[in-house]
Amino acid sequence: MKEIAIEQMEQRGITVEDIALIVFDLQKSYHPGLEMGTCFEAIDAVLEKREVQHAILTGLALDVLAEQDLLPEPISTIIKTDESLYGIDEILAIAITNIYGTIGVTSFGYLDKMKIGLIGRLNSSLVYVNTFADDIVAAIASAAAAKIAHNQKESSKYRH
Amino acid sequence: MKEIAIEQMEQRGITVEDIALIVFDLQKSYHPGLEMGTCFEAIDAVLEKREVQHAILTGLALDVLAEQDLLPEPISTIIKTDESLYGIDEILAIAITNIYGTIGVTSFGYLDKMKIGLIGRLNSSLVYVNTFADDIVAAIASAAAAKIAHNQKESSKYRH
Amino acid sequence: MKEIAIEQMEQRGITVEDIALIVFDLQKSYHPGLEMGTCFEAIDAVLEKREVQHAILTGLALDVLAEQDLLPEPISTIIKTDESLYGIDEILAIAITNIYGTIGVTSFGYLDKMKIGLIGRLNSSLVYVNTFADDIVAAIASAAAAKIAHNQKESSKYRH
Amino acid sequence: MKEIAIEQMEQRGITVEDIALIVFDLQKSYHPGLEMGTCFEAIDAVLEKREVQHAILTGLALDVLAEQDLLPEPISTIIKTDESLYGIDEILAIAITNIYGTIGVTSFGYLDKMKIGLIGRLNSSLVYVNTFADDIVAAIASAAAAKIAHNQKESSKYRH
Repeated sequence: MKEIAIEQMEQRGITVEDIALIVFDLQKSYHPGLEMGTCFEAIDAVLEKREVQHAILTGLALDVLAEQDLLPEPISTIIKTDESLYGIDEILAIAITNIYGTIGVTSFGYLDKMKIGLIGRLNSSLVYVNTFADDIVAAIASAAAAKIAHNQKESSKYRH
Repeated sequence: MKEIAIEQMEQRGITVEDIALIVFDLQKSYHPGLEMGTCFEAIDAVLEKREVQHAILTGLALDVLAEQDLLPEPISTIIKTDESLYGIDEILAIAITNIYGTIGVTSFGYLDKMKIGLIGRLNSSLVYVNTFADDIVAAIASAAAAKIAHNQKESSKYRH
Repeated sequence: MKEIAIEQMEQRGITVEDIALIVFDLQKSYHPGLEMGTCFEAIDAVLEKREVQHAILTGLALDVLAEQDLLPEPISTIIKTDESLYGIDEILAIAITNIYGTIGVTSFGYLDKMKIGLIGRLNSSLVYVNTFADDIVAAIASAAAAKIAHNQKESSKYRH
Repeated sequence: MKEIAIEQMEQRGITVEDIALIVFDLQKSYHPGLEMGTCFEAIDAVLEKREVQHAILTGLALDVLAEQDLLPEPISTIIKTDESLYGIDEILAIAITNIYGTIGVTSFGYLDKMKIGLIGRLNSSLVYVNTFADDIVAAIASAAAAKIAHNQKESSKYRH
């Protein structure tokens, strides 16, 4: 199912490479010798988790169905316009972020606000509905960053 | 939007009356003089919350779309069969439960396991997809029970 | 740190054996051939996680300090009497439960309500403060049960 | 209990005024005419909630006890050094953030990362243990910002 999740992300313009760039950006100041390979490995481990795959597949399905006008109203309009008080996208994202403990939530909130890299591009698309997609990317990147932090703990000196 | 949420629940066989019976069942031993009116009021307050409305509308839309075979695979089959490791329905439900603090989560887990009243009927339907519906009902009932517990705190003697 | 967490649990009357009995009880109907060894292994994997160790050490410290009257008021009385609206114990417990996805939350709520085995004994202690302890036990058992469910997924037929 | 929570915050150098400045900073770009009075009112509503009061009292007690070397090891050292993988402070904070739905979590993560205003001062203290304090401030500010967003929804145009 991991491959299917990756495939469905790619169909929405989300590549593992773009997520890896965000992870690298998040962690580089904490881990000076950080390599891109480590970021790819961490993302790979995150995508291995069943709960993450389920969140990705469910969220992207909602984006696609909203885009195709197949959702009932008023949820269709709410998702299409990413209505400011709609928080179900964050809820799904937090389920992803939580798999390596709550420390990932900090990065998630930061990414969601700063809209770094791909997250910003997804968020500002005028053509596609990316209400869930941008949060999913931020969540996968945050979880991967948390995994790297866990692994490199001994050499880590930062406070969160 | 509250009316629309109630209407869409009714279209899926979920009435406020049935939820009230579950709330009464949950709280009667803690609050001997509890009246059904109090349960209705608590449910009403829960349904007033935007986050609850969003969770209801999103969850029921997923049930309906799964039923109509409009979701992409493999998420369609996962939701249709309520696959045992699929946890996104619980995630949405916990978002509802949380609105009166985490004490509601205990009742939610209990209801989800014991499948009291309407929850059991939804869960065992052979015709309809109620993967999200049963958890939504359990969550609304738990949140309403938590609200009653908050309100009647002074006379409450139970330990959680 | 895992050994220290186990040791501090034992000092509060919590043994891995008692937790394993609860896990067995939770999962036996879903996995007919379930062996106690599988329950022990699952608990072991749960206790390996950093977030779980932190939650155990923090929660038990609060119980002990409340018992020794070292906490400031009013939190001291709130924790000593396990005040019905105090939900921080559940919050810590849910952090444990979440490590294998949200499906563990159902078992947690059920255990917290039914107070099976050790959980009931901890909860009814007249001598010790177990406000956090009983929820921690319920949470470890639920997380271990979720892990077993994940591992035995292919043979699992239950709906949650 | 609200007054006690405010008092115990003040004893740790946390004033409602400082929190209001952070809320103003968070929301000013979304609500051009935002006044400080609105920020104070929102914080007041947040502090009214029982779950928030419990989280404040519990978190600050842990900071104080760590400072006074009254916690057992190893949790004492973990909290005193705000060990990078310790996430219980975030867990308590998220319980606060959640009271107005999950949209608050974005601001929380952002504040926790950017350490704006008082949050940065608490975090960099060389004398006091503020492991829980800085997250509590970020969480109260985020919840208050979420409340303002809910109230001013109709005029709000931002995407989250």
